[in-house]
Amino acid sequence: MGREFLNLIDISTAHKIINNLFKEIYQPPKIEEVELEDAYGRILAQDVKSPIDLPPFNRASRDGYAVRAEDTFKASEDNPKILECIETIEAGSIPRKKIRRGYCSRISTGAPVPEGADAIIMVEYTEEEGDKILIYKSAYPNQHIALKGSDISKNDTISKKGALLSPEKIGALSAAGITKVPVITKLKIGILSTGNELIEPSDDWNPGKIFDSNSHSIAAAVKNCGCKPKILGIVKDDHRELQKAIQSSIRECDILITSGGTSAGAGDILRDIIDNIGEVIIHGISIKPGKPTLIGKIDEKLVFGLPGFPVSALIIFNVFLRPYLMELSGKSLRYKYVRELPLAQRLHSSKGRVHYALVKIKDGKAHPILKDSGAITSLADADGYIKIPKNVEILEEGSIVKILPFF
Amino acid sequence: MGREFLNLIDISTAHKIINNLFKEIYQPPKIEEVELEDAYGRILAQDVKSPIDLPPFNRASRDGYAVRAEDTFKASEDNPKILECIETIEAGSIPRKKIRRGYCSRISTGAPVPEGADAIIMVEYTEEEGDKILIYKSAYPNQHIALKGSDISKNDTISKKGALLSPEKIGALSAAGITKVPVITKLKIGILSTGNELIEPSDDWNPGKIFDSNSHSIAAAVKNCGCKPKILGIVKDDHRELQKAIQSSIRECDILITSGGTSAGAGDILRDIIDNIGEVIIHGISIKPGKPTLIGKIDEKLVFGLPGFPVSALIIFNVFLRPYLMELSGKSLRYKYVRELPLAQRLHSSKGRVHYALVKIKDGKAHPILKDSGAITSLADADGYIKIPKNVEILEEGSIVKILPFF
Repeated sequence: MGREFLNLIDISTAHKIINNLFKEIYQPPKIEEVELEDAYGRILAQDVKSPIDLPPFNRASRDGYAVRAEDTFKASEDNPKILECIETIEAGSIPRKKIRRGYCSRISTGAPVPEGADAIIMVEYTEEEGDKILIYKSAYPNQHIALKGSDISKNDTISKKGALLSPEKIGALSAAGITKVPVITKLKIGILSTGNELIEPSDDWNPGKIFDSNSHSIAAAVKNCGCKPKILGIVKDDHRELQKAIQSSIRECDILITSGGTSAGAGDILRDIIDNIGEVIIHGISIKPGKPTLIGKIDEKLVFGLPGFPVSALIIFNVFLRPYLMELSGKSLRYKYVRELPLAQRLHSSKGRVHYALVKIKDGKAHPILKDSGAITSLADADGYIKIPKNVEILEEGSIVKILPFF
Repeated sequence: MGREFLNLIDISTAHKIINNLFKEIYQPPKIEEVELEDAYGRILAQDVKSPIDLPPFNRASRDGYAVRAEDTFKASEDNPKILECIETIEAGSIPRKKIRRGYCSRISTGAPVPEGADAIIMVEYTEEEGDKILIYKSAYPNQHIALKGSDISKNDTISKKGALLSPEKIGALSAAGITKVPVITKLKIGILSTGNELIEPSDDWNPGKIFDSNSHSIAAAVKNCGCKPKILGIVKDDHRELQKAIQSSIRECDILITSGGTSAGAGDILRDIIDNIGEVIIHGISIKPGKPTLIGKIDEKLVFGLPGFPVSALIIFNVFLRPYLMELSGKSLRYKYVRELPLAQRLHSSKGRVHYALVKIKDGKAHPILKDSGAITSLADADGYIKIPKNVEILEEGSIVKILPFF
């Protein structure tokens, strides 16, 4: 009933191969232009330069009076200087009058500093007597003025290629008047589930069937990696039907993920198809769960054949796809949140295979979830998973484990 | 030129007041039903029970033969038991024949175990001779069978109220056939920018004007908190116009954020309006930047008046809105990623006010960004911000600071 995996490879070899494939096929990434309001969380694909000086003019940074600094020298509480106010300049308006010796203009924060003036005296240090303004404190040149271009000069880079478009970056770009930005195009990931026993989740259950959950959990995991999932439905474990589905799917996406149909017993259909229309690169990895994982290439696009069991599928996705998808979508910076906690009970592992085990965090400890990979509740309960090295057979209660989150 | 803040309150008092307001007004949260495919990242608003048993039938978890365990007792390599195979049961099909003593059925992983059988013998421990199957190893009852309801029983809770709908939770829900889930409704946050000097970002710059950046940075920050931003545009610093805008905006959203127009010099327009049509709760907080922050209530909805300077607006949002929005949208669990790094250079703070300062992370150190709150580049460069307590005037080079990310 099916052939065994001829070349079971270890995890680090698999990672090397996958890393190279990702570089070869998906680098450099494609670029698209999006409106700034849709750019949150995206990755800038090119340096963006400022089309203007910022501030665009000499701007008052306090409410007060625009003066010639020299007119205020030696002003004090006891001996105020007296200037004549010739204009009121509100933010958003344009000064009409030049400041000559002995004159000043009333000015609001954010307003352009009038010609001739080189300092702002804060309103707190002045007094008004008709058109005469009493100045009680001397000003130094450029006091309370944000000079034109002092924040950023025209053609200076505001945000660099590779930057994550966070609220503050978006703020800086819009301050320069930018409304569209070049970002890395999200990879489109097609998701196929295979298995004669699978049906779409619904109110209707049919005898002998089970609801497909992998499409939905993998689609969410794909979103989490900053990529665009496309659920392509359920295909029977039938050579012709699956080949047809894969051939049409591969045209619609950048990467294709299938789940189910990879183990020896499922008839090697997927393996045969990829052998037939593409190239099998990896079939069988020394990992638990997920040994029958298959990785191939069709039309210069990667195909990942994940195991059918929900836990296995999601763990293999997290171990072999997530880091690369995250990197391509530039999200890797954010998702390094790993918790280290003591193990709540002794845990036995598999000899000779790296073992990924689900854990639940409770009372500051990592509680292993001891169910098989088919169990749905183990997924519903899990807070993340831990990695147990190949050569470790027993992890004692209390040993510190690193918990990798699914999310 | 405008009145001073009468009641400057400290940060912890402000937090207490805001916390109570959020509880009073926005708890319990509203609930909506969404399709499971749109549910990623949302928060479950009610416990969800399984409408079915999982597995829905006794399911083979290996490829092999469904047998009566007692028929295999004492089987060994040298002394195989011989059973007659009466049927082949593929995954997704329904067994037609009952297993009686001396008989077995060929079965695939995932297929329903036929009546009468209580164990699966893995194919590896068998040999086929026509209809006769040689069994080389004895089985124990329930071996390699996932019993109906053993994973989850009908009406058991799959996922609890408050759960973040991560890939694994979505997997578990879809395995039970669930296609819609009740989630917490995203708060709708209206965003108004005020200021006569503001214009929408575009290619066209007008003299004396500056591009509105707060609407865009705050909108992104609102998304980051799991809420829905609605940019309501720019309003002039004019009492009648702003009051009209606020009155129509407040009907469209759950919380209204304005920026600009809060400082004493801007003429207290916002304060007067909220006094007029609602209630001013806080005006002036002992914090730098952001002292003139205003918090009020109109029609039982919160209004936050943030300062106009981009850095100040974003920091006030992060300090006084983000934690509460995050909590309401259930995202708080994810965003506790704080880095602790040494300060790259000595930093002077403001006496008597808690000071929030932007920093850039470089070479494993936190470099303070020493620009004023109006500077856009300080935003573009920042990786986060640090909090300097009220009573600290100088932070020495090398002191360890906690960096809170914007994102």
